[in-house]
Amino acid sequence: MTLAAGILGGAGYTGMELLRLLARHPRARAARITSREHAGRAVAEVFPFLRGGAFDALAFTAPQDANWAGCDVVFCAAPSGVAMRHAEALLQDGIKLIDLSADFRLRDAALWERWYGAPHACPALLAEAVYGLPEIRRADIRGARLVANPGCYPTAVQLGFLPLIENDLVDCEHLIADVKSGVSGAGRAASLATAFGEAADSCKAYSLPGHRHQPEIAQELQRIAGRAVGLVFAPHLLPMIRGIHATLYARLRERRALPELQQLYERRYAAEQFVDVLPSGAHPDTRSVRGANTCRLAVHLPQDGDSVVVLAVEDNLVKGAAGQAIQNMNLMFGLPEGEGLTDLALVP
Amino acid sequence: MTLAAGILGGAGYTGMELLRLLARHPRARAARITSREHAGRAVAEVFPFLRGGAFDALAFTAPQDANWAGCDVVFCAAPSGVAMRHAEALLQDGIKLIDLSADFRLRDAALWERWYGAPHACPALLAEAVYGLPEIRRADIRGARLVANPGCYPTAVQLGFLPLIENDLVDCEHLIADVKSGVSGAGRAASLATAFGEAADSCKAYSLPGHRHQPEIAQELQRIAGRAVGLVFAPHLLPMIRGIHATLYARLRERRALPELQQLYERRYAAEQFVDVLPSGAHPDTRSVRGANTCRLAVHLPQDGDSVVVLAVEDNLVKGAAGQAIQNMNLMFGLPEGEGLTDLALVP
Amino acid sequence: MTLAAGILGGAGYTGMELLRLLARHPRARAARITSREHAGRAVAEVFPFLRGGAFDALAFTAPQDANWAGCDVVFCAAPSGVAMRHAEALLQDGIKLIDLSADFRLRDAALWERWYGAPHACPALLAEAVYGLPEIRRADIRGARLVANPGCYPTAVQLGFLPLIENDLVDCEHLIADVKSGVSGAGRAASLATAFGEAADSCKAYSLPGHRHQPEIAQELQRIAGRAVGLVFAPHLLPMIRGIHATLYARLRERRALPELQQLYERRYAAEQFVDVLPSGAHPDTRSVRGANTCRLAVHLPQDGDSVVVLAVEDNLVKGAAGQAIQNMNLMFGLPEGEGLTDLALVP
Amino acid sequence: MTLAAGILGGAGYTGMELLRLLARHPRARAARITSREHAGRAVAEVFPFLRGGAFDALAFTAPQDANWAGCDVVFCAAPSGVAMRHAEALLQDGIKLIDLSADFRLRDAALWERWYGAPHACPALLAEAVYGLPEIRRADIRGARLVANPGCYPTAVQLGFLPLIENDLVDCEHLIADVKSGVSGAGRAASLATAFGEAADSCKAYSLPGHRHQPEIAQELQRIAGRAVGLVFAPHLLPMIRGIHATLYARLRERRALPELQQLYERRYAAEQFVDVLPSGAHPDTRSVRGANTCRLAVHLPQDGDSVVVLAVEDNLVKGAAGQAIQNMNLMFGLPEGEGLTDLALVP
Repeated sequence: MTLAAGILGGAGYTGMELLRLLARHPRARAARITSREHAGRAVAEVFPFLRGGAFDALAFTAPQDANWAGCDVVFCAAPSGVAMRHAEALLQDGIKLIDLSADFRLRDAALWERWYGAPHACPALLAEAVYGLPEIRRADIRGARLVANPGCYPTAVQLGFLPLIENDLVDCEHLIADVKSGVSGAGRAASLATAFGEAADSCKAYSLPGHRHQPEIAQELQRIAGRAVGLVFAPHLLPMIRGIHATLYARLRERRALPELQQLYERRYAAEQFVDVLPSGAHPDTRSVRGANTCRLAVHLPQDGDSVVVLAVEDNLVKGAAGQAIQNMNLMFGLPEGEGLTDLALVP
Repeated sequence: MTLAAGILGGAGYTGMELLRLLARHPRARAARITSREHAGRAVAEVFPFLRGGAFDALAFTAPQDANWAGCDVVFCAAPSGVAMRHAEALLQDGIKLIDLSADFRLRDAALWERWYGAPHACPALLAEAVYGLPEIRRADIRGARLVANPGCYPTAVQLGFLPLIENDLVDCEHLIADVKSGVSGAGRAASLATAFGEAADSCKAYSLPGHRHQPEIAQELQRIAGRAVGLVFAPHLLPMIRGIHATLYARLRERRALPELQQLYERRYAAEQFVDVLPSGAHPDTRSVRGANTCRLAVHLPQDGDSVVVLAVEDNLVKGAAGQAIQNMNLMFGLPEGEGLTDLALVP
Repeated sequence: MTLAAGILGGAGYTGMELLRLLARHPRARAARITSREHAGRAVAEVFPFLRGGAFDALAFTAPQDANWAGCDVVFCAAPSGVAMRHAEALLQDGIKLIDLSADFRLRDAALWERWYGAPHACPALLAEAVYGLPEIRRADIRGARLVANPGCYPTAVQLGFLPLIENDLVDCEHLIADVKSGVSGAGRAASLATAFGEAADSCKAYSLPGHRHQPEIAQELQRIAGRAVGLVFAPHLLPMIRGIHATLYARLRERRALPELQQLYERRYAAEQFVDVLPSGAHPDTRSVRGANTCRLAVHLPQDGDSVVVLAVEDNLVKGAAGQAIQNMNLMFGLPEGEGLTDLALVP
Repeated sequence: MTLAAGILGGAGYTGMELLRLLARHPRARAARITSREHAGRAVAEVFPFLRGGAFDALAFTAPQDANWAGCDVVFCAAPSGVAMRHAEALLQDGIKLIDLSADFRLRDAALWERWYGAPHACPALLAEAVYGLPEIRRADIRGARLVANPGCYPTAVQLGFLPLIENDLVDCEHLIADVKSGVSGAGRAASLATAFGEAADSCKAYSLPGHRHQPEIAQELQRIAGRAVGLVFAPHLLPMIRGIHATLYARLRERRALPELQQLYERRYAAEQFVDVLPSGAHPDTRSVRGANTCRLAVHLPQDGDSVVVLAVEDNLVKGAAGQAIQNMNLMFGLPEGEGLTDLALVP
């Protein structure tokens, strides 16, 4: 069996990364892809780095001309607002949908509208959609027709905080996530803010008054904590292409020793193929996951105080987007979870 | 009057930056410079970017051959452990000393020894040394013979926290400083950790278990707060040359509105030439101070909660080192504080 | 006397650099500036790195509302096609024009139309315009009302080839200029090609079939050679912000020894403040001129063969644009040629 | 069958890349690895990005303790001077050797000594060693016991010039190779020249008087041309991690039209899996081969003149080193040539 995958909105970085990963997948292939801008052009013409891959016959079609018949699964890699207009039709045709945009991440349509500035076009499916973080929702994902693939920041932040919150060790009302992202997190677009001349050799915070990933993270951590969660979320733009580095701060409810916390993390993720807890004292670098579907974690307790600091790194386009989507696809179709995702990072 | 300045240990980035800034200073000039490695070579030969400056007659001498006679002031840009062996002799000869290393930053010799791993060679001068952060200690600096120039991180962190602590607005026992630095902060050295192939296109935290700037910051904030200060200090290495971005987190003791905090910062720094409080809602980028002696600040209150987030950027080699040293020199010799330091940032 | 300078089209990198340099100039100031996009906004609001400069009272006006009365000189930093529509009016009002765009660089209106794809709007002034490369046309510039400021690549390429061609040492029909540019050479614009995610950590050639700077360089070298010049011009985009590195290849008509060539270059530029010939065997790096108005040269004769290789570096925004424009202004108004341009490079 | 591979000197970038590629290879595995510096440590401890790969049982041994018994092939990734001391023993034990250093690239021991500054320790094997550029020497490589893996620059330069020289179209005495390399080409070492603070945001030429890859390229092009070859070789260091961009200039002996040249290149490489000739008019970027074993070419004829310009890009660590070594291994052991080498580039 080879799964036929469609990609809705495939001309951005997430779409490119899905193509790269599908080319490596032994049991899935890209069968359809849409792009308003590139309709009619071969993907290997638009993206020369794909020349010589298995894409010679694949061309972009306009979204309105897309024919998903024959597809087992469709990935939506378009901006928010697109997946919710296609979801019902796809599901009715028996095609599973993995949405890499934010359309089905928030369960509350009103909350969605507040953050995304438009009414939700498909609130009926919000309850069915499964939040696709396999390390937390694996069983639900296996049975899902519609998966809301998590945001890049939310993946790192949740995997980092998870053991502390599951075990009720920290003050959940005052969590802090200081997160740093490479420029590809902003997508493939001609924008001045992410121009080389503006973003290179510099660092800046952004969206401190409010970022769309804050409610997403809060919602999911609340589900785990079983109570209200307060989260200060501070994103920063860094002069690198790929990579997210999350530095997470939480106050312990009672003093703990570092070895206890280290053991907690190691046990929580012992069976997880894509979460790697580093030895005590280590500091992961984002390049160690460049191109790989791994999230690397380290736990620290500076000056043996009452504040835990968790470091979490991931490739925003892989574990933070396309890789996790493939991982979800594997689960939804009963394939080995790591199929096609075992590449090591590209270092240096 | 033109001040004659000596530079002890001038072959690193701080020494280079002192030369660059002195070349621009209307009332000071580099008169002597030492380097073990480059003794006997002209500075413009070692640093071709200085060709055509006013350095044609200036050559490095070995530290042991240095003759500081005729110098009004000596800057020590050597690693820690050097200044404390020269301080007494210089002061006895009537030469003022501005130490850019850490030798005179900690007032407690025992604390110094714990962090720097060696006995302090000159504890007698610790009490006299003035911590050279003009925005806090201006009057003391004016009268000082020996100034301990603050570390790069401590400058940004203190300027960022200062108004909150002076006004007793926050819980001083749980301050967090998530700081990000360009690679030049590690000095000019052949080290694998800062090699381009290792540090480019990546981000990592380091020294979470303990960094030497933590006790320096805690000591100075404690002086201001008049009580014990708890600080989690988390430094990160970023793929940029210059620049520090400090993201500071503090819990308000009582709720405050953002405009009140904004006003507090604007008032505190209204008369400060080198601290620029951005309008409400802004996010400074490090490049906006590249090459300039400015520290730019912004105050945020995410989701109108009880956690203040302060953003502070500076050029680690200017306001974080050589620029601040010149600013201190100006104060110590009765020159206008900003003399030679008015250049705008190099953007892009 | 302080010159009042206007900037037509000041929202790009060249305009920003003119502002930065004028802020440092003791005898000139920015008095007017236009921008379609930012009309009505203060320059320090649009460019926060200019906060605290002398620009508090300066705001952008729309080009059509610009009133140049009171200006001694106007710099045109707009894209090609703008200066030629303002030139006559400015000159009639007694205002000198330094055009940093390409409108007056080619003396042949037909050639201009072929390369720029539109009729020339002001062919009458082409004969009067002086090509503003002071190292070649100093006397003419002094008397000029209208200066065509050279392109960034042409400056480096001409200064590099000049001594060889003036002395008729090389085969002028087969010159090769392999030039490498930082991204700011493409201007401040939201374009996909210069996005960080596209241009970082990569290198590519572009415009090999034909680049607008090729006819400009050929025209000027021809004037010097007094005969037809053949030039292969190969530009490359590099992942750096500022800087041009020109690697120039020419075949010697007769064998020469390297010391003879070295001496030739040193003599040719001995009196030039902004051209620095490095000692034999050296390789200039672009950062050694970052922010400075210097062009650094080195001459090589690989394997003592018959091919000379000249290396030329400059900051494309300074000696390649705004700095050279200020240099021209100084000449046109009888000021010392280097006034306001003596800053050393920002290294590292 | 799974080949057991040894790596002699595996702690550098080439060794890391061999490990990464062998982990992906379905029919080979890293069985032994040496490092003086890391002897006794697990490879995944030294290189955390390899955690979770198939390397859990693999540790570095000191070179003198290395036991190659059981290995089918040994890759030498050490600096020059090591392979020539191990070659005879390995071959005698029936182990094939693929040397990624320069020890067996030059066929003339005297020439080797001149460029590498030491006597050659194993001249007896120089005649047997096969220069491992499969696109030229495929049949010889298949039968070889000892392969001299080409240098990174020589691979790109030869593949770029090859069709022109094989067909005697250009003046072979005046070839020019202007080559640009990422920093990883200098190896994994703590050196000031490749420090981030020195190499970032800058560009410089180096080794213009003479670079070791010049005689290697000349020797091989001469073999093809059947006559003396003159080559000006100008390497440049660029602020990127991986990637080589070769810009090659040659004078046509007779005028040719571009389509003829384009067709020549397409035909020459039509059957080559790892050489990709781009459509006419294209400019390859180095990132399009990042992590891939592909060399991408484009042919240009600027202004339809008599100078051909060929652009060639490769990843210096893959097609320029470790990937090509694996390709050679595949040939030497009768495996499909592309086994384990089919990954697409990592873009962005």
